[in-house]
Amino acid sequence: MSSPSFADRHVGPRAADTAAMLDSLGHADWRPLLDSVPPAIRQQHALDLPAARTEAQVLDRLRELAGRNVQRVQMIGQGYYATHTPSVIQRCVLESPAWYTAYTPYQPEISQGRLEGLLNFQTAVADLTGLPVANASLLDEATAVAEAVLLMQRANKASTAATVVLDAELHPQTVAVVRARAEAVGIAAVVADLDAGLPDLPDGVTGLVLQQPGTSGRLRDHAGLVAAAKERGAMVTVAADLLALTLITPPGEQGADVAVGSAQRFGVPLFYGGPHAAFMAVREGLERQLPGRLVGVSKDSEGRPALRLALQPREQHIRREKATSNICTAQALLAVVAGMYAVYHGPEGLREIARHAHGAARTLALRLTAGGVEVVHDAFFDTVTVRVPGRAAVVVAEAERAGVNLRLVDEDTVGISCDETTTPEHLAAVLAAFGTDGAAPGSGGFEIPAPLRRTSAFLTHPTFHAHRSETQMMRYLRRLADRDLALDRTMIPLGSCTMKLNAATEMRAMLWPGFASVHPLAPDHQTEGWRELVTELEGWLAEITGYDRVSVQPNAGSQGELAGLLAIRGYHRSRGEDERTVCLIPSSAHGTNAASAVLAGMRVVTVRTAEDGSIDTADLHARIAQHGEQLAAIMLTYPSTHGVFDTEVREVCEAVHAAGGQVYVDGANLNALIGLAQPGEFGGDVSHLNLHKTFCIPHGGGGPGVGPVAVREHLAPFLPGDAAGDDDGAVPVSATRYGSAGVLPISWAYIALMGAEGLAAATRSALLAANYVAKALDPYFPVLYTGADGLVAHECILDLRELTKRSGVTAEDVAKRLVDFGFHAPTLSFPVAGTLMVEPTESEDLAELDRFVEAMVTIHGEIQQILDGEVDVADSPVRRAPHPAADVATDAWDRAYPREQAVFPVPGLRQDKYFPPVSRIDNAYGDRNLVCACPPPEAFEEDR
Amino acid sequence: MSSPSFADRHVGPRAADTAAMLDSLGHADWRPLLDSVPPAIRQQHALDLPAARTEAQVLDRLRELAGRNVQRVQMIGQGYYATHTPSVIQRCVLESPAWYTAYTPYQPEISQGRLEGLLNFQTAVADLTGLPVANASLLDEATAVAEAVLLMQRANKASTAATVVLDAELHPQTVAVVRARAEAVGIAAVVADLDAGLPDLPDGVTGLVLQQPGTSGRLRDHAGLVAAAKERGAMVTVAADLLALTLITPPGEQGADVAVGSAQRFGVPLFYGGPHAAFMAVREGLERQLPGRLVGVSKDSEGRPALRLALQPREQHIRREKATSNICTAQALLAVVAGMYAVYHGPEGLREIARHAHGAARTLALRLTAGGVEVVHDAFFDTVTVRVPGRAAVVVAEAERAGVNLRLVDEDTVGISCDETTTPEHLAAVLAAFGTDGAAPGSGGFEIPAPLRRTSAFLTHPTFHAHRSETQMMRYLRRLADRDLALDRTMIPLGSCTMKLNAATEMRAMLWPGFASVHPLAPDHQTEGWRELVTELEGWLAEITGYDRVSVQPNAGSQGELAGLLAIRGYHRSRGEDERTVCLIPSSAHGTNAASAVLAGMRVVTVRTAEDGSIDTADLHARIAQHGEQLAAIMLTYPSTHGVFDTEVREVCEAVHAAGGQVYVDGANLNALIGLAQPGEFGGDVSHLNLHKTFCIPHGGGGPGVGPVAVREHLAPFLPGDAAGDDDGAVPVSATRYGSAGVLPISWAYIALMGAEGLAAATRSALLAANYVAKALDPYFPVLYTGADGLVAHECILDLRELTKRSGVTAEDVAKRLVDFGFHAPTLSFPVAGTLMVEPTESEDLAELDRFVEAMVTIHGEIQQILDGEVDVADSPVRRAPHPAADVATDAWDRAYPREQAVFPVPGLRQDKYFPPVSRIDNAYGDRNLVCACPPPEAFEEDR
Repeated sequence: MSSPSFADRHVGPRAADTAAMLDSLGHADWRPLLDSVPPAIRQQHALDLPAARTEAQVLDRLRELAGRNVQRVQMIGQGYYATHTPSVIQRCVLESPAWYTAYTPYQPEISQGRLEGLLNFQTAVADLTGLPVANASLLDEATAVAEAVLLMQRANKASTAATVVLDAELHPQTVAVVRARAEAVGIAAVVADLDAGLPDLPDGVTGLVLQQPGTSGRLRDHAGLVAAAKERGAMVTVAADLLALTLITPPGEQGADVAVGSAQRFGVPLFYGGPHAAFMAVREGLERQLPGRLVGVSKDSEGRPALRLALQPREQHIRREKATSNICTAQALLAVVAGMYAVYHGPEGLREIARHAHGAARTLALRLTAGGVEVVHDAFFDTVTVRVPGRAAVVVAEAERAGVNLRLVDEDTVGISCDETTTPEHLAAVLAAFGTDGAAPGSGGFEIPAPLRRTSAFLTHPTFHAHRSETQMMRYLRRLADRDLALDRTMIPLGSCTMKLNAATEMRAMLWPGFASVHPLAPDHQTEGWRELVTELEGWLAEITGYDRVSVQPNAGSQGELAGLLAIRGYHRSRGEDERTVCLIPSSAHGTNAASAVLAGMRVVTVRTAEDGSIDTADLHARIAQHGEQLAAIMLTYPSTHGVFDTEVREVCEAVHAAGGQVYVDGANLNALIGLAQPGEFGGDVSHLNLHKTFCIPHGGGGPGVGPVAVREHLAPFLPGDAAGDDDGAVPVSATRYGSAGVLPISWAYIALMGAEGLAAATRSALLAANYVAKALDPYFPVLYTGADGLVAHECILDLRELTKRSGVTAEDVAKRLVDFGFHAPTLSFPVAGTLMVEPTESEDLAELDRFVEAMVTIHGEIQQILDGEVDVADSPVRRAPHPAADVATDAWDRAYPREQAVFPVPGLRQDKYFPPVSRIDNAYGDRNLVCACPPPEAFEEDR
Repeated sequence: MSSPSFADRHVGPRAADTAAMLDSLGHADWRPLLDSVPPAIRQQHALDLPAARTEAQVLDRLRELAGRNVQRVQMIGQGYYATHTPSVIQRCVLESPAWYTAYTPYQPEISQGRLEGLLNFQTAVADLTGLPVANASLLDEATAVAEAVLLMQRANKASTAATVVLDAELHPQTVAVVRARAEAVGIAAVVADLDAGLPDLPDGVTGLVLQQPGTSGRLRDHAGLVAAAKERGAMVTVAADLLALTLITPPGEQGADVAVGSAQRFGVPLFYGGPHAAFMAVREGLERQLPGRLVGVSKDSEGRPALRLALQPREQHIRREKATSNICTAQALLAVVAGMYAVYHGPEGLREIARHAHGAARTLALRLTAGGVEVVHDAFFDTVTVRVPGRAAVVVAEAERAGVNLRLVDEDTVGISCDETTTPEHLAAVLAAFGTDGAAPGSGGFEIPAPLRRTSAFLTHPTFHAHRSETQMMRYLRRLADRDLALDRTMIPLGSCTMKLNAATEMRAMLWPGFASVHPLAPDHQTEGWRELVTELEGWLAEITGYDRVSVQPNAGSQGELAGLLAIRGYHRSRGEDERTVCLIPSSAHGTNAASAVLAGMRVVTVRTAEDGSIDTADLHARIAQHGEQLAAIMLTYPSTHGVFDTEVREVCEAVHAAGGQVYVDGANLNALIGLAQPGEFGGDVSHLNLHKTFCIPHGGGGPGVGPVAVREHLAPFLPGDAAGDDDGAVPVSATRYGSAGVLPISWAYIALMGAEGLAAATRSALLAANYVAKALDPYFPVLYTGADGLVAHECILDLRELTKRSGVTAEDVAKRLVDFGFHAPTLSFPVAGTLMVEPTESEDLAELDRFVEAMVTIHGEIQQILDGEVDVADSPVRRAPHPAADVATDAWDRAYPREQAVFPVPGLRQDKYFPPVSRIDNAYGDRNLVCACPPPEAFEEDR
């Protein structure tokens, strides 16, 4: 080894720091920390992983794998289209740590940049779909349709049948995912050919889902179908192609209630299936039914316009088992890319791109027709369906030999999708594959039918017109990035979210064409490199967690939960125990657990949490006894969401097993366990992991995520199936086989770089960092829960409730005041209201931990002044935090505390000070006055 | 075309903006602007360049070219070694516009980040060489030795012989470059075998240049040679390997006066020969003799430590024909990378890497010896020279077949260089090529001899110990970047420096292994892609400039000038006109012109500038008459450095030609000409271009640059030769055939993307932008020079002298005040003292131009208040600018103007305000108290 191992680069503290940190805990070595993992569950062997590789070796291997994927012109379509990611967006967003290492914008004051990025996305989607409110992304088009079905089910009060009708023109993967999701919650999903209008349906049908253009490419005027459905009391969702919407009448103008789809082709690489941003837009009145996150405009304490997540009480972490969606991490980074693609091209540019794709498809259709080949549909946007009886496979093979992938629809039918990247050479290759030389075509035909031509304007907001040169775009992206705090400037000590280093080497491969340009439906012989990477990664994750099988398909933690619970459900049903539907969930669990259980068709029963944060075993036994044969599962988080190692976890698991239930171990806190204990070994039947927490996929400001589901052998048959494949029985949870495949090289690289010992070292350091901070801060902010040994696991809850009661200073005040120190706040009021949960992770060095401690102690001093009656809380720096430059560099300073205290409360801030762009944001104002699209520029005029 | 052409992305103003801008000039179309180029020189045809390609097409073609370079394990050595660029440095520096688009840090207040980066480099070099002061990079090792020779010549007052002795162990390319450079200025360079000590030499010899380790790899104790040389009154320069210096006694400890070398292997890719940072360090007393830029520590107006370029009066732009070096642009970006490599690895990491390379070489030597193969030297660092009589070519070919490049020294000798990347597999392949299977070696031998083992500490400064985790490094690089203003935040309207967009697509290819990992001495059959790219680029540049032949070898504009003047010199000499040595240079020329002329052995004669900025033709004719047969050349800049199109340029050229002189047209202002006029057509015999000005290579904070030299056919035989090749007669100016090859894909991509029409459109827009700004600002700051039509070319000089006289506000005050508006200042006091020269370039959009105009007009208003007696200049915001956050968010504000005026002088700054980290820097203080290495951390303590 010629240089420090990667593990030494990944882990923050140096050897001497570690010694000092252990010493501060009164320990001479690691043993006491490791012993805080209960002996009963301690792993007895080192993980069987390949030896740690150097960064150069990992890049070499990734290059080799990428080289074994065949790059082809991708004209398969079916929801995935080649696109040019503008280089300026790639460089300044996808290659910029300031963008990709950012956290979900729950702290809006330090997230104005990414919130604006997401608002651009929402505005673009709303404009293009013709519906007033769009959310800040969903996971993929198929799950977006599933979410729309659930939305219609709850919003359509007139519905009595719990039935939805699915257009036969939906993509097959959409139908597969929606059926599975609907079935789990008791909604019937009927696929119908709608060519002859609405079929005869039971009264009280919930809704209709149409697709425009259809999976066959055809354009169909939906006006009649929508009207007919509405007449029957059904709601209508349209799955639409964003690019097509620049040329065709948008769903909102045809009466649709909901529009969904994928924004992939707005500059997001194919990525072998994901991550891509899906979207949902709704008509007025349905805003509060929207799943996922929604960015809205509010104002700050000085009246400046300010963005933040709107209508938070809708979300799964608040509503728990009353939640209507379990969506948590979505596809924020990709939504930003798609939004910026719209910003960069503007309406005229998007229209031009759409015309190019449409023009290429028309040329193809005209020439095929002229060559005597049968084109099936008269009207299409970018996709031509061709009938070649008995010859489809031959044509597709011929095209592949010429370097072009086409869609093999059935033995008689081929699909060809054109896109932004299509060239005359591509078209010539396709024509040759059909055996025609592209005879001169007639001049007319295959136009978009007049009634379907879009006449309304879109993207009229100045943002979509002001960044047309690359210099403008580069500066806009820098300006937005500078408004935010991400991991490239500060630790983000978020309990339960594990914000660790996203190493540059880990991030390198994802944009290589050998990985990024592969279509998810490319034939397997073209994707050997991808599949080998997935197989290795799934194997390593199984080894790490102690399970037998892993699927990386779920493209978010929430989807991993759902997949795991559906596996449990499938298992019980396979044994004829359909009545096992009760899911026990500790009261301290993350709200997503309960939401996922409901979506898996389970009934949530809460188990009480004991004083020390562990499960109340007495209550557990009572619940087990109470529900007996109905017990399906328990969902545990380990170590608990209270940040301690519950010593009785094995007993809890055994009790559930004894009652015929399955044990679901939430992997949210896996960062405390790797190399020390394995959920699959200490009692779990299934877990989901969060590769974006534990395995270094960056949070991207709220996604992408990957939530692999890991199971013991008996649940393996119930792992997610391929929505586009034929594996009957296995239920897909995502549109594509490997979900967010595009970011898997990141986690693959992390494990390959760390090796077994590196991973264990990271776990140890994570435990040490949390205990170091807990010990240092406990005298000021009492640590709420510790284990019997007085130690916490990888995070600690700081209890502010007593201080709040006495001083009026809330945990939120402290969170906002940390901004003035240049810190991202810890997790606020989860799992206990009035607390802050701190998870420093192994990647933070001792100086950064000390800087955090210094900030917190300084803030405590400011609270002490309030307690001492020296300062009024209402005019304290803590309450009036954070402090933008505009508020302190003013000549009208009238606050009780000095400016220097406001902005330079500790030395070390003067030279490299971060100023938030806004002061404290008024959340309620924004929810009362909901605005979820780009506000008019006048709102930002500064001479207020 | 499915999206806007790249030219539309490169050029800032949209069509409507352009119309408005023309309208502001009173013009309805482009014609008047184009007509400001004199009809006599107007180009009559469109450039014959390939049609503009899309960004995707350009990337495809670059991938294809990269794919045609063969990637090999590079063990050739000879000054170029494989290295691992740490991914975090690649991502956060080489892929970060904040670093690579920065300008040379002449405005230190907005350059503290990159100045610290360079200071790290200087500190590392000084520590490693054992000499107290190092500069902020030179161009390559060979030219660094040439600079050292010149330094010794002027510093060694005892010298009488103008003779230097060159160690036969110097790299051959170093000898070739030094001989040529020395010959031009009349210094004899004698190559000597120093094995038997110093040869018999004339008295008064100037200096001795040694190399450690030698090009053969050998380590030789230089103590005796140095002492002997000093006894003879000679000075001593040692060319040293930075990595070796972690293990061996540094030159400074052996009495050397100067150390030079390359920092390439500190994380900078091979890049087929460059760009790499070379270095020079000197003993105490020689600081003021150092060529190139030097970063030093000074203080700001509030006493804070602050960095800036030290000892500026040494530099070529000040000293003109009295300059001792013509170095201007150096290798700042690569020096930052090398410095950060030292920061990231620290002394222990560097030593470990050195031990790895040395260990690999030892293993090789031991096993070869054990296998009966003759290893030539007993002591070496990383390079083993092997004698295989008559078999060298066979061994090298065998190794190549196994994927390894070795050095073919001569028919009997092979060189093998180990490095950071060497693996046991590489060694096995090498051994196999020698026909030995690597028998078990003896355990001893080939150690570094005891007297040569380094015992002194290095890199003891905390900076080299505080950034060992990737997170720390990432944040450090972000923090430094945030202190600076670069093109990603503001226009940099620098007259004569052409700071335009460095597009992301242009920047993509340079780091691809297919380009970056190629050794400059790799055999031609491995470098087809590289050479095709160079050939195409040279052809395109010839077409654009109207010349017949181009060489891209000069790795900076200054080297291009030198190469061009050496070509003129060679031409005259070839015709027996050795006496033609007078070079006419207009008084308004950039100082580098004169410096280059001196280094080419010419005598500078100044020609007066007329009232309007053009050449005073009467004076020109007088000078021509005066120097008659001695006239060698005239150096023109066109359009002139005064920013106007001289209508008589053709006549000037003809007059010089008629007198037997050659015409050198400086390409600094080529951005005003492309597509409109060609220097090679209107009278130039030779020009140098600046690819880092006109052709989009980013400035990198002061390099890399590329300064191709373009000539008419009669000068072609005198273009630079290959320093490592055999083309006798042709004089090399850089160490490698293609100089800074690594950045050539940037310019290649720019031209490929723009095409002839795009380039012409850029020129037009550059002219328009300059005239728009000139027109808008003239009422406030009179435009000093315009053409007969009242128009400027691509830049304008704003005359502040009258205002300064009346108000006391200087051009520098205005430059510093612009920082408060978030702007980088224009060029200050060049070519006319007391003025600002503004070159907006075509890449700036109308809004940014208007923002600049608004700032300047606002500043004029502040000056007006002083004129009106309302404000005292000493306590005015202009004089006290710029304003760091620490100075305005203070409770002790005692200035006469409001804080809000200080920091928010115009609306639009509040949300995205840039604060400089320091206030006005005291340059003189730093020069009086010269500190050119990292200051102790206490200096930055903030509770002052």
